[in-house]
Amino acid sequence: MHFLDNYRSIIRDAINKHNLTNPPHQLYDPINYILTLGGKQLRPIILLMSCELFDGNIEKAIKPALGIEYFHNFSLMHDDIMDKATLRRAQETVHVKYNENTAILSGDALMVISFQMLEDLEPHLFKKCFCLFSQTALEVCEGQQYDMNFEKQQIVSFEEYINMITGKTAVLCACAFKMGALIAEAEPDDLKNMYEFGRSLGIAFQLMDDYLDVFGNQKTVGKKHAGDIVENKKTILYVLAQQKADEVQKHKLNYWYTITGENENKVNEVLAVFNELNVGDSCLELVKAYSDQAKNYLNKIRVDTNKKHTFYELVDYLLVRES
Amino acid sequence: MHFLDNYRSIIRDAINKHNLTNPPHQLYDPINYILTLGGKQLRPIILLMSCELFDGNIEKAIKPALGIEYFHNFSLMHDDIMDKATLRRAQETVHVKYNENTAILSGDALMVISFQMLEDLEPHLFKKCFCLFSQTALEVCEGQQYDMNFEKQQIVSFEEYINMITGKTAVLCACAFKMGALIAEAEPDDLKNMYEFGRSLGIAFQLMDDYLDVFGNQKTVGKKHAGDIVENKKTILYVLAQQKADEVQKHKLNYWYTITGENENKVNEVLAVFNELNVGDSCLELVKAYSDQAKNYLNKIRVDTNKKHTFYELVDYLLVRES
Repeated sequence: MHFLDNYRSIIRDAINKHNLTNPPHQLYDPINYILTLGGKQLRPIILLMSCELFDGNIEKAIKPALGIEYFHNFSLMHDDIMDKATLRRAQETVHVKYNENTAILSGDALMVISFQMLEDLEPHLFKKCFCLFSQTALEVCEGQQYDMNFEKQQIVSFEEYINMITGKTAVLCACAFKMGALIAEAEPDDLKNMYEFGRSLGIAFQLMDDYLDVFGNQKTVGKKHAGDIVENKKTILYVLAQQKADEVQKHKLNYWYTITGENENKVNEVLAVFNELNVGDSCLELVKAYSDQAKNYLNKIRVDTNKKHTFYELVDYLLVRES
Repeated sequence: MHFLDNYRSIIRDAINKHNLTNPPHQLYDPINYILTLGGKQLRPIILLMSCELFDGNIEKAIKPALGIEYFHNFSLMHDDIMDKATLRRAQETVHVKYNENTAILSGDALMVISFQMLEDLEPHLFKKCFCLFSQTALEVCEGQQYDMNFEKQQIVSFEEYINMITGKTAVLCACAFKMGALIAEAEPDDLKNMYEFGRSLGIAFQLMDDYLDVFGNQKTVGKKHAGDIVENKKTILYVLAQQKADEVQKHKLNYWYTITGENENKVNEVLAVFNELNVGDSCLELVKAYSDQAKNYLNKIRVDTNKKHTFYELVDYLLVRES
């Protein structure tokens, strides 16, 4: 998607411009490391897109967009410790490359800096954006907590799962869309609809991520194939499988999700159950449903339909992406 | 000090009132746990004192004061993981009572909540207080990084040490004094002098802490006797000892500070060197010097001298406290 590349180059330039060079380098090097690993940088891009949609000044939105990207990377640093993840964007995670203490402390600093990225905004706007951001940040922590709770739950309901990914993924996406609109001084109804659009899109995005982990192209995903199965992560595929499984299949799932560590047999056995129950297709149907919900909110936003074109494209892009 | 108790009861009531009861309890229980462990709660108290000094509305200052206390407790949660500390205020640390992941994530949430405590302030004041707070937060992270760096440095200069404790302890103290004055809408010169007063006092406070760890009354300190020596912490006593030591004493210090774990012999040997070099008294002289510096800043503040009485008392209290 060409238009995404334009925004992405603005974000990358801004990240490079805000490279942290002050001492102590032991604190700031790991931050520069994770920020330059790349990634899709969708969250800051959508903040810029949203600001432009409402004819806002994109220059004013760049640092807040970086703030959103910084916060996302802070959460990755800490989540990777908690999840004992060794790879992030096909490179070593911060706690592996450096150590856990560094990942904790540099993450803390990065969270603070993410909030500081709003400080150029005038007081009224600053306060509005900060309150949105801080509430979002807390919900992200709650989402991560629910995700950790799932490790000890054999059954995770569909509602619990959607609630978890809403916190862990969708609200930051919703926050980015709404903040862009706030900076452009959009009307309250449009702010609300942008937020809900972002939340639905964020849920669809995470469901697609769960799908790609198992059914995606390993090279483009850049993560270990079926890493979620290896790590006994209760993703939407697991939740759907538990709902649809007969006693034999439930027994299989429950057995394999107690086995830890790499095990080729395990991935194949779980995958066989997933395929028997067709949970891949069910997952794609959910992605479609949440994408449609997102489009419904987008329809309500009171700007020219042709200005919204790239937003519809963005939603559809989720349905065809391979990583 | 009776007047401290009055402020402390305001803070304790506010902490209890803001008890976090929303789900997920796995995220919020550890926060309630650390906040109700007590501690001196000097940081929020000085924010209230400072607000009153400039005839500000103390009601308006209570939530920001909690914010400072919350931030301090967030930093304790994470520092205790990094330092592998098992006791805090004579109770189990969060990562021991719960686990490391909980201490990381609940700490993150607590940092966010600490900033949210400013959100009742009107936009202009909110922005001023937030910018002060966020800059302080970053300096606290830098201080902790320097402290971790010291683990790998045999020689720590006096300047490096003061710089480290300025970040790790003094700036949050300075921030609390200045924020109280900001909420009371004090004049720029007074704001600056309150900040510098707090910084000098914070340095004196930390130096006294270093002294008490080794020479304090174990029961009232509530921590392991000479825990800093056991953990090879390069405190001011170590820095001064390295400066004054002859070759034999240096050799002893360097030897013992490579030995890890509990070792009664080690504490006695290091203590013997400290006593030979009289670093306890040198440390108390530094406490006095920084306290005097604090008083000089206090002298410059343009409010009635009799209103500043409790502030002078607070400084002196540092020189006689036993914990």
